[in-house]
Amino acid sequence: MSKPSKIGVGIIGTGRIGKLHIEHLAQNIPEAELIAICGLDPADIESLAEQFNVPKTTNDYTVLLADPQIEAVLVASATDTHVEISQAAARAGKHVFCEKPISLDLGQIDETLAIVEKAGVKFQVGFNRRFDAGFMRIREGIASGEIGEPHIMRITSRDPAPPPIEYVKVSGGIFLDMTIHDFDMARYLIGDEVVEVYAAGGVRVDPQIGEAGDIDTAVITLRFRNGVIATIDNSREAVYGYDQRVEVFGSKGMVAAGNLLTDTVTFSGSEGTRAASPPYFFVERYRPAYLSELRAFFACIQKDTPPPVTGEDGRAPVVMGFAALKSLRENRPVLLSEIQP
Amino acid sequence: MSKPSKIGVGIIGTGRIGKLHIEHLAQNIPEAELIAICGLDPADIESLAEQFNVPKTTNDYTVLLADPQIEAVLVASATDTHVEISQAAARAGKHVFCEKPISLDLGQIDETLAIVEKAGVKFQVGFNRRFDAGFMRIREGIASGEIGEPHIMRITSRDPAPPPIEYVKVSGGIFLDMTIHDFDMARYLIGDEVVEVYAAGGVRVDPQIGEAGDIDTAVITLRFRNGVIATIDNSREAVYGYDQRVEVFGSKGMVAAGNLLTDTVTFSGSEGTRAASPPYFFVERYRPAYLSELRAFFACIQKDTPPPVTGEDGRAPVVMGFAALKSLRENRPVLLSEIQP
Amino acid sequence: MSKPSKIGVGIIGTGRIGKLHIEHLAQNIPEAELIAICGLDPADIESLAEQFNVPKTTNDYTVLLADPQIEAVLVASATDTHVEISQAAARAGKHVFCEKPISLDLGQIDETLAIVEKAGVKFQVGFNRRFDAGFMRIREGIASGEIGEPHIMRITSRDPAPPPIEYVKVSGGIFLDMTIHDFDMARYLIGDEVVEVYAAGGVRVDPQIGEAGDIDTAVITLRFRNGVIATIDNSREAVYGYDQRVEVFGSKGMVAAGNLLTDTVTFSGSEGTRAASPPYFFVERYRPAYLSELRAFFACIQKDTPPPVTGEDGRAPVVMGFAALKSLRENRPVLLSEIQP
Amino acid sequence: MSKPSKIGVGIIGTGRIGKLHIEHLAQNIPEAELIAICGLDPADIESLAEQFNVPKTTNDYTVLLADPQIEAVLVASATDTHVEISQAAARAGKHVFCEKPISLDLGQIDETLAIVEKAGVKFQVGFNRRFDAGFMRIREGIASGEIGEPHIMRITSRDPAPPPIEYVKVSGGIFLDMTIHDFDMARYLIGDEVVEVYAAGGVRVDPQIGEAGDIDTAVITLRFRNGVIATIDNSREAVYGYDQRVEVFGSKGMVAAGNLLTDTVTFSGSEGTRAASPPYFFVERYRPAYLSELRAFFACIQKDTPPPVTGEDGRAPVVMGFAALKSLRENRPVLLSEIQP
Repeated sequence: MSKPSKIGVGIIGTGRIGKLHIEHLAQNIPEAELIAICGLDPADIESLAEQFNVPKTTNDYTVLLADPQIEAVLVASATDTHVEISQAAARAGKHVFCEKPISLDLGQIDETLAIVEKAGVKFQVGFNRRFDAGFMRIREGIASGEIGEPHIMRITSRDPAPPPIEYVKVSGGIFLDMTIHDFDMARYLIGDEVVEVYAAGGVRVDPQIGEAGDIDTAVITLRFRNGVIATIDNSREAVYGYDQRVEVFGSKGMVAAGNLLTDTVTFSGSEGTRAASPPYFFVERYRPAYLSELRAFFACIQKDTPPPVTGEDGRAPVVMGFAALKSLRENRPVLLSEIQP
Repeated sequence: MSKPSKIGVGIIGTGRIGKLHIEHLAQNIPEAELIAICGLDPADIESLAEQFNVPKTTNDYTVLLADPQIEAVLVASATDTHVEISQAAARAGKHVFCEKPISLDLGQIDETLAIVEKAGVKFQVGFNRRFDAGFMRIREGIASGEIGEPHIMRITSRDPAPPPIEYVKVSGGIFLDMTIHDFDMARYLIGDEVVEVYAAGGVRVDPQIGEAGDIDTAVITLRFRNGVIATIDNSREAVYGYDQRVEVFGSKGMVAAGNLLTDTVTFSGSEGTRAASPPYFFVERYRPAYLSELRAFFACIQKDTPPPVTGEDGRAPVVMGFAALKSLRENRPVLLSEIQP
Repeated sequence: MSKPSKIGVGIIGTGRIGKLHIEHLAQNIPEAELIAICGLDPADIESLAEQFNVPKTTNDYTVLLADPQIEAVLVASATDTHVEISQAAARAGKHVFCEKPISLDLGQIDETLAIVEKAGVKFQVGFNRRFDAGFMRIREGIASGEIGEPHIMRITSRDPAPPPIEYVKVSGGIFLDMTIHDFDMARYLIGDEVVEVYAAGGVRVDPQIGEAGDIDTAVITLRFRNGVIATIDNSREAVYGYDQRVEVFGSKGMVAAGNLLTDTVTFSGSEGTRAASPPYFFVERYRPAYLSELRAFFACIQKDTPPPVTGEDGRAPVVMGFAALKSLRENRPVLLSEIQP
Repeated sequence: MSKPSKIGVGIIGTGRIGKLHIEHLAQNIPEAELIAICGLDPADIESLAEQFNVPKTTNDYTVLLADPQIEAVLVASATDTHVEISQAAARAGKHVFCEKPISLDLGQIDETLAIVEKAGVKFQVGFNRRFDAGFMRIREGIASGEIGEPHIMRITSRDPAPPPIEYVKVSGGIFLDMTIHDFDMARYLIGDEVVEVYAAGGVRVDPQIGEAGDIDTAVITLRFRNGVIATIDNSREAVYGYDQRVEVFGSKGMVAAGNLLTDTVTFSGSEGTRAASPPYFFVERYRPAYLSELRAFFACIQKDTPPPVTGEDGRAPVVMGFAALKSLRENRPVLLSEIQP
């Protein structure tokens, strides 16, 4: 009885996040049915299909898109394939969930959003952190007026270890690879648009990152239209673990989200009291948020409501990333209007 | 390929914990295959079977036990059926996972353990809290010598709200229904046996509980063979939520497990800083522990190792419960040797 | 102008607490004027007198009591002299602030309180912890009904290191030397009387303490007239420092006082996050409380109001200490009515 | 005997900080003797002199400087008098402790430092926060290499309520009045010089502050010579109280100083757990630091060592304040070299 109402899903890409989506689809999302996995490594996709009882596998995403049982696709492949696949999927009438960033090219993003619009399909971007219980609580504290008018926001976002240098080289740089999540978080929490970005940064963690033309340490100042001033600080390596904190200060109070810890145990000895570290990295830290974002995606299909993270939400942080890059190079605050035509 | 190695499982009982086990079996334990659900309410078991793709349902546990595909059974039915079902299951050669308490009758427990022993099957008791990450860390802090010789332990265990009065009447009383988890935790953490119990208590939450012959507030002192002195404090109603803390103090330091909270967000306003509450109750608080205990059960079957919570571990807290009851009634410390023949 | 209204004070005893009182009198209590110091070591009292500008010194407390300028005396000498000096002071018409315990002999306490009563002087006992900001806040949470009806209280009170064995031998034992503060705290916070005491304990820290006939580790259960059940746990040696915590649980919530720390700094590294330790011991931890108790003493003289810690408050914890000792020896709960005639 | 070695002190100015210094001198600094108070309000200085036993009062600072018993002066008068008095004091051969800022005019600061240099007297600036136990611990974590190479610093510094608008008008603006403490803290903690400042800010708290030509909310980015990037965020009104936190992140870890709270008590109820607020404002929060800075001043006189906060330390934050102001006005990062000739 319930089978017919399940949404048929295909996934393209089986990296870390792709695998997590597959696991969630197979185990925790009864409203969806994972029908096909598309990936580059045949052994990998076979093994995943068997483990999670997925009937079809392919290394050709067009085969997946041709499947009439599939109503929705998850695009978790390499960034430089997002646009091509998303566009083809939309043209094929499939709802699209696309990992961030949509593209590193604003023209291609605009083209994609136009195609999606014309196709009338849902298009959600994978900004998973919006679905974290803590950050949702922060958003609520702002939206409800609990903290009054927001004045100052601080986002701390530090990775436990830098990615492989080969990844760094094709990542689009720290602002489009790492800070992009924080840019999205900033817009989401404040519920308003950023007008200007100032970025300071340097190479402090690994000289190879500098040789690759990137930086590994950054402090970004954002000015919002409504007067809020925000800072984001990023590092590619926090030895104490994945540091994900937010604090928003307003006229009536402050809301702050601290780090989750792996347990609540403390040890008190002659050196003082020691508490646990945060979960290792994004898969561990944001697992429930990754699940919630998919649930929200399928809910917007079922209820035909707008997705909670829109195409425009996917575009704006890319603009902010380019503005940050320009700011860093020219050492001056850069208006977003300088970036977008 | 992997299918043949899955352990066929049947579950008896579909209350809150039964349902949680079914969900975990269906979604998160690839090493097991849930073949049959046995329950009293036909609509309930049909609905669960459909939701989780379970092939068989029955309201007769002997049918389930007769199924040759089923190698292991989970006994999550009413307490007064645990013994009969566990014994029948063992005699049928099934491995048994039995919810706590095995029985409120020590003779029946001994009989059951003897039958299990003779049948050569695994028998694990559902003391889920042992599998909580925080309490495992506490155990490690003691077992590893991190805190030196343990001297004093404090366990706080308070429910968010009392159970229905009808449940209270058949529960065996607070010590065998609620404190039993803490008695088990005490033995597990210290890794030694309790020799004497002193219980103080009263009716502070609800007079109906008193009318039912039970108490709702208790403070128990335990003396261990190795000299550790422990206190357990229980309440049937903590308005701030399910309070589950442990602290162990020793010659070289102290380990303490605080409450988990629903999120890490604080709000600071003119009234001070406010943090979140604990998750509502045991299903929310100990979900990962409930999953881990099942995984450990299947692992001990697959590797043919002793279960991590044995029949003796199931028996000892019942003895402690009787000792606490006797102590409360006679207002004096009671040796466990007074209870067990 | 303001000089005439100052209360002339003499102090007897220049141990650690005596010295602290002298410092506070000289620097922080403008309403009092320290006129004389009485002590056994001539060099010590001379040096204190010079440092703090105190005009008179003596090794004979009767000389001090004969001084008409002195209206109030602080008795901070050895415990076995408290009764004699307090009685003489009261007879001389001086207000008396006496360190705890008044005496280890209930008959002598009663005699002293009767003499004080007859003399019509103020008599305050040095239970300094009542004046700690945190514990006052706990008291307020109970007295105001913020936590509803109190049900359970837990007091943790652990010293950083045991006293010299010579001191242990004359201390009256852990219950009258150390737990006495916790007995007082229990009565103060709950605002009601204890009716029964059960004590468990042992020698875990230092065998010499056992050889001296004392214990160094104790867990005490108290039953109050109003139904509250409290536990106190004591150790003579907490390697992580002076551990002074209280938690009171009631029908509408819980108030808990954690440890003060020497600073609010944390270090996060690959081993987790490390916080500071508590201040070393009572002089560091309770310095502001020691000052407040003296201010309260002089205020009750100036306003002719009852002292905030009365003679009866000094007597009751001694009774509780004897009950605890009897309980430990006989391994049974002991009613306070068994101790006091 | 000890009298001759005391340092004779005169204080000029009896505002909030002046009064605090007087109290500390009278009660807690035996190595100094407060000989004269100079202030504008005769009743006020008489009352202080009587309360703290100070022999001389005057409303003419030159009289005070002419007193041969006075070796050191504390300049706690209005900012626009600091230079004149400090210069006169130095010329009179007195050691000078001068409240911040020395002046809002860099030329006058340089002139003053030159005069001090020539006079060979000690000159210490009142950056009291350097003497806070928590911030000293942070400094130690950096200086000792505990956190490795510092990369990112965050300073949060928010007042509980804005000053009177009349004060705002003459304060020199938020950067020179309020942020100046944070500029000093930044230099002190990192132990290196700032080369560039970028300031964003606005009027969010009170429009009157804007009408007075000032701002009340600011976020400042600092770049240090050694590559550290720091942010300071300021608000004139945090409803939850005086917010004084610092966090320094480096290659081997992070040190963070949280807010002190008025007590360690929490209340847990159905709304979650509530903790206390910080002490109200600087006098309450930094009282021990105000005492320590004076002790350090007298110690440098007695030992003839350099003061812990030098004239150059007093000058640098003023330069940073001007750079911040220029940055705010021109909306671009400003090099300190643009400010100082």
